[in-house]
Amino acid sequence: MRLATIDHGGRPTLVVATSDDEVAVLPERFADVGSISRVSAEVGVAAANEALAAGERLPTADLTWLPPVLRPGKIVCVALNNSANPRRIISGPATPAMFIKPSSALVGHGRPVRLRRSDGRVHPEPELAVVIGAGGGDIAESDALSHVFGYTILNDITAPDLRAEDTFHYQAVHPSPGGDEVRYVESWVSYPARYKGSDTFGPLGPWVVTTDEIADPHALRITCTHDGRLVTDDTTANLRFSVSEVIAFASRYMTLEAGDVIGMGTALRRSPQGGAAVQNLDLNRLGGEVAVQIDGIGTLANPVQWR
Amino acid sequence: MRLATIDHGGRPTLVVATSDDEVAVLPERFADVGSISRVSAEVGVAAANEALAAGERLPTADLTWLPPVLRPGKIVCVALNNSANPRRIISGPATPAMFIKPSSALVGHGRPVRLRRSDGRVHPEPELAVVIGAGGGDIAESDALSHVFGYTILNDITAPDLRAEDTFHYQAVHPSPGGDEVRYVESWVSYPARYKGSDTFGPLGPWVVTTDEIADPHALRITCTHDGRLVTDDTTANLRFSVSEVIAFASRYMTLEAGDVIGMGTALRRSPQGGAAVQNLDLNRLGGEVAVQIDGIGTLANPVQWR
Repeated sequence: MRLATIDHGGRPTLVVATSDDEVAVLPERFADVGSISRVSAEVGVAAANEALAAGERLPTADLTWLPPVLRPGKIVCVALNNSANPRRIISGPATPAMFIKPSSALVGHGRPVRLRRSDGRVHPEPELAVVIGAGGGDIAESDALSHVFGYTILNDITAPDLRAEDTFHYQAVHPSPGGDEVRYVESWVSYPARYKGSDTFGPLGPWVVTTDEIADPHALRITCTHDGRLVTDDTTANLRFSVSEVIAFASRYMTLEAGDVIGMGTALRRSPQGGAAVQNLDLNRLGGEVAVQIDGIGTLANPVQWR
Repeated sequence: MRLATIDHGGRPTLVVATSDDEVAVLPERFADVGSISRVSAEVGVAAANEALAAGERLPTADLTWLPPVLRPGKIVCVALNNSANPRRIISGPATPAMFIKPSSALVGHGRPVRLRRSDGRVHPEPELAVVIGAGGGDIAESDALSHVFGYTILNDITAPDLRAEDTFHYQAVHPSPGGDEVRYVESWVSYPARYKGSDTFGPLGPWVVTTDEIADPHALRITCTHDGRLVTDDTTANLRFSVSEVIAFASRYMTLEAGDVIGMGTALRRSPQGGAAVQNLDLNRLGGEVAVQIDGIGTLANPVQWR
């Protein structure tokens, strides 16, 4: 089942794909995929079946897309989670490293990524995203996939020059062993709100595909194109930490809630036809349209605009 | 007006202080301070006045406190925003550096901060917090305070050993000038979801005090005590970036929404009676109770538990 949230006469409305060309509108109480995942997958699927039988039809080509989950409680993103990363890591954790992207950063398929020239370099990061169904804390790895409502696409837009700006090289205060004195330890710390969380830095969608249609979330081709040129051509088989490992680890620290979104980390492998790395795609210089495609889910395309 | 969210017979319920010893219950449609700030300050104040006139009374001593905003759209925290910081900074931004704390980290006054021994060192960070009323993007500094609904207290619990674990020393991929090739630049990057965003790492409350009762948010004494021992004794006059500057800067990047919370950064000055720095208060070793007090707002106290 492919579900999406659209703007329907000014109201967020959940729809289900009846074919590649048409969707059916769900009953009014479902404004977005989050509202389904917060009830139960069963109730949601029943409502979607009701819509498939008798809901209003709309042509897919005419839709105004919104983020499938309008206001996730949190968007947890996993950093450096591709098998191409470890050889670049001098030191780092043996577990998933995570940051939070605010829900205000989300935009739907087709909506512009809006940049300022002062943002410096800005590149796309194509990612598989997990939408949580039943929430929980301390979820066992063996049970983790039962907490997934579905899968979608996140373009984790990143501004590395803002990252550099928001990195401190400083003397961290550490306690001295014993007593009330402190010692200073030279450290680096970086803060991601701007470089990962600015408005429009979170294209999400277009569809959430329910788990019954994704036999294996680690066998999906994922590509990124810029103005039609293939740049990234990777597979979710190259994820370093699996969906189950990330859900188990994240939920050990942060209770996951229905509708939470997890960005699984950037697909990095360059197209075998040669060409640029995703970090070469400076959207602030190039403009144009960036698209992320995942087999079985769809294509999330967003034009660049300046503000 | 002092507003709080409590658990009232299993339901989140908004109350207003009638005195230091008693609160009045607001009409049912207001579950928390967020639900007021999302309507309008005027409607909220009218409802609170209705409660003051005729609402059910409860003794303050018996309340079960919840985070005043149950589920903020985002919690924006400003890093290293105290005048004591700059002399420790070797390099860093000239603007507020920010990270996002997930709403799932919030707990109310009196609720335990729950730690695992494996979290390593964990210390409190006493902070003034701003609750946004009318949201907006690109808010002018001169207009910023009109977007504040009220002020509360955030204890920005921090686990520096988890921060160290989630810091990468790595070869960042940068584009080469011109062409599709890349070069590698040795960099440090740290990811705050675990060390700032774990469950219970966000005590918030007890009260949100409306702006009419806080003549100057930069003239408030802020203290932190551990088991009654005064550790931090600072004032919001020592904030490096003011509330207006932070709202203007943050809203330039992230549209602020009603009910969003901004943590203004850690009060650091040690008690003049001498003693520990806040970083010495390793709650994971010491246990006990940590309390943050801000003049005119109240006292946010939380016991430490292990899980």
